[in-house]
Amino acid sequence: MNLPNRNAQVRLRRQRDGLPDAGDFQMGDGPVPEPGDGEFLVRTIYLSLDPYIRKAIRGDHPGHAVLSAGDVIYGRAVARVVKSRHAGVKQGDYMVAETGWQSYAVLTPKKIVQRIDPAMGPLSTAIGVLGMPGLTAWGSIAHLAPPTVGDTYVVSAAAGPVGGTVGQLAKIAGARVVGIAGGKEKCDVALRTYGFDACIDYKKDGWEQALQLACPNGIDIYHDNVGAPLLMKLVAYFNLYAKVVMCGRPGDYHSGEFGGLSPGPFIGKRAQLRGLVVYDYEKDLPRYLRVASTLLREGRLRFKEDHADGIEDTPGHFLKLMRGENVGKAIVAVGPEKG
Amino acid sequence: MNLPNRNAQVRLRRQRDGLPDAGDFQMGDGPVPEPGDGEFLVRTIYLSLDPYIRKAIRGDHPGHAVLSAGDVIYGRAVARVVKSRHAGVKQGDYMVAETGWQSYAVLTPKKIVQRIDPAMGPLSTAIGVLGMPGLTAWGSIAHLAPPTVGDTYVVSAAAGPVGGTVGQLAKIAGARVVGIAGGKEKCDVALRTYGFDACIDYKKDGWEQALQLACPNGIDIYHDNVGAPLLMKLVAYFNLYAKVVMCGRPGDYHSGEFGGLSPGPFIGKRAQLRGLVVYDYEKDLPRYLRVASTLLREGRLRFKEDHADGIEDTPGHFLKLMRGENVGKAIVAVGPEKG
Repeated sequence: MNLPNRNAQVRLRRQRDGLPDAGDFQMGDGPVPEPGDGEFLVRTIYLSLDPYIRKAIRGDHPGHAVLSAGDVIYGRAVARVVKSRHAGVKQGDYMVAETGWQSYAVLTPKKIVQRIDPAMGPLSTAIGVLGMPGLTAWGSIAHLAPPTVGDTYVVSAAAGPVGGTVGQLAKIAGARVVGIAGGKEKCDVALRTYGFDACIDYKKDGWEQALQLACPNGIDIYHDNVGAPLLMKLVAYFNLYAKVVMCGRPGDYHSGEFGGLSPGPFIGKRAQLRGLVVYDYEKDLPRYLRVASTLLREGRLRFKEDHADGIEDTPGHFLKLMRGENVGKAIVAVGPEKG
Repeated sequence: MNLPNRNAQVRLRRQRDGLPDAGDFQMGDGPVPEPGDGEFLVRTIYLSLDPYIRKAIRGDHPGHAVLSAGDVIYGRAVARVVKSRHAGVKQGDYMVAETGWQSYAVLTPKKIVQRIDPAMGPLSTAIGVLGMPGLTAWGSIAHLAPPTVGDTYVVSAAAGPVGGTVGQLAKIAGARVVGIAGGKEKCDVALRTYGFDACIDYKKDGWEQALQLACPNGIDIYHDNVGAPLLMKLVAYFNLYAKVVMCGRPGDYHSGEFGGLSPGPFIGKRAQLRGLVVYDYEKDLPRYLRVASTLLREGRLRFKEDHADGIEDTPGHFLKLMRGENVGKAIVAVGPEKG
């Protein structure tokens, strides 16, 4: 297969407040760049679309400076090394790296997020169940609030890669797992693909009653992916000593629209709340990958991806994610896996 | 010593919103009541004044129905059995019991909060350091967030019986202890009576800078006795993985004036927050009393009481507590210890 000889890029056209729209992005291209000494050239295979990107563009996310018009949009991708002038990186290596939204990128090793052993599982899972979203789930399940037999485990954003993995691992650990998601399609993924015991569509009237019915023994652990207002509603159904893993995006938690927590009900329930930041578990990634790749091969751990094809579809696919209409991990297939 | 032959009582005169005032209470008296079968008569020695009483009067506290005009005010006291018609209770027994604000009460055993062994320490400490406030501190120190050598331990409401005991136990465990309190007099108690390493007067300008200077290595554990707004300020000085024991009064936490917590900064600090309810540790009271009474005898654990004398001073002393002007445990000495 021939690789393109130009570097297609998605660039910022304008900075705006509020939800981004198609006019905020523009396509561009340039020559395929050449790596200098200590650098290497990668080509993008699967671009990961994530909610944090919106914040990063505006400089509101740790480690990301605000972008100017004409800059390539931030992003991580499964990538393959085309040419290397760094001793620790070999042509043909697969990795997750900070490529940005483009088909080629010249990088240094500090832009590597994770090296990929293709034997572990499908390449695309390195930005999903076998990547940071999976490790986030592992931090919650293995470290912060391990579920066990008979627990009632509730997880929000249940169709997503973190929520889906958290819930499946909780089921494997013997818990009754109840997802919360927006819309029938996402609930179907939680039920049919992930095998949750129940999934509550919070966009439907009477969802709180449905949740209560789905949790006849109360909630023991809640993995929170969405923020304070839902957490304030769920505390009413907590058992005493319930555990909460706060895994929402801190940037969103800060904004006024997401409201705040009143400690009272959490004291009443003797609840335990802990904040999760995935970077704390990077040293545990090899162990997680051994566990998860085995479960994946056995068909006991499943994933759902929402693919767009071609880098030119990236803005549209990102806007779909921003509207919450993606079902599963949002990915853009940019280039071939092999070659 | 002769005991009074009438039962002096403080009764509710009117229910109002907002801070209570002297016009809300009225003195009354009645005959000394006679215990029926299965009941016993106690006389009040030390009446405990506590912030929860304000809520209880209005029926806003668990287990307390709203009071009507003419009802005796709720309250706990160190009391002694005068006459018993219950096989498990003997004349001369000391106990902490739900007597209400009156000099005599006829009770059943379910009104007993705690039996008192007078050999453990001064009788009045059974409603302070050797009672529920002390056990609250023990729940925090021994169960929810044990401090250790080198920790920086911060506690609010530092002059009070819970805050003072928490801080002294943390010091005994090797921590650097920094109190937060309102006013110089309370800070002096924390420093001189309790021996804290520092105490910050939050009513003084620049108190946050003073706190930062007093915690050069950051905060490892924060025992919170006051609520969300202070907690939201302190999180900036937390170390990673800092622990918070939420021990404020849930009733107050509910009210809008106390604001809410934004989860974002707590996630960023990977903080662990746990709610404390003292009733969970009742089974551990004997162990705590052994530990605390020994420390008390050795002079390593100290307490501060703010006494009023005579039941007729109860409303005034309660209003002082409501204004936050008490320094130490608020107590009304109603009757003699002996006899």
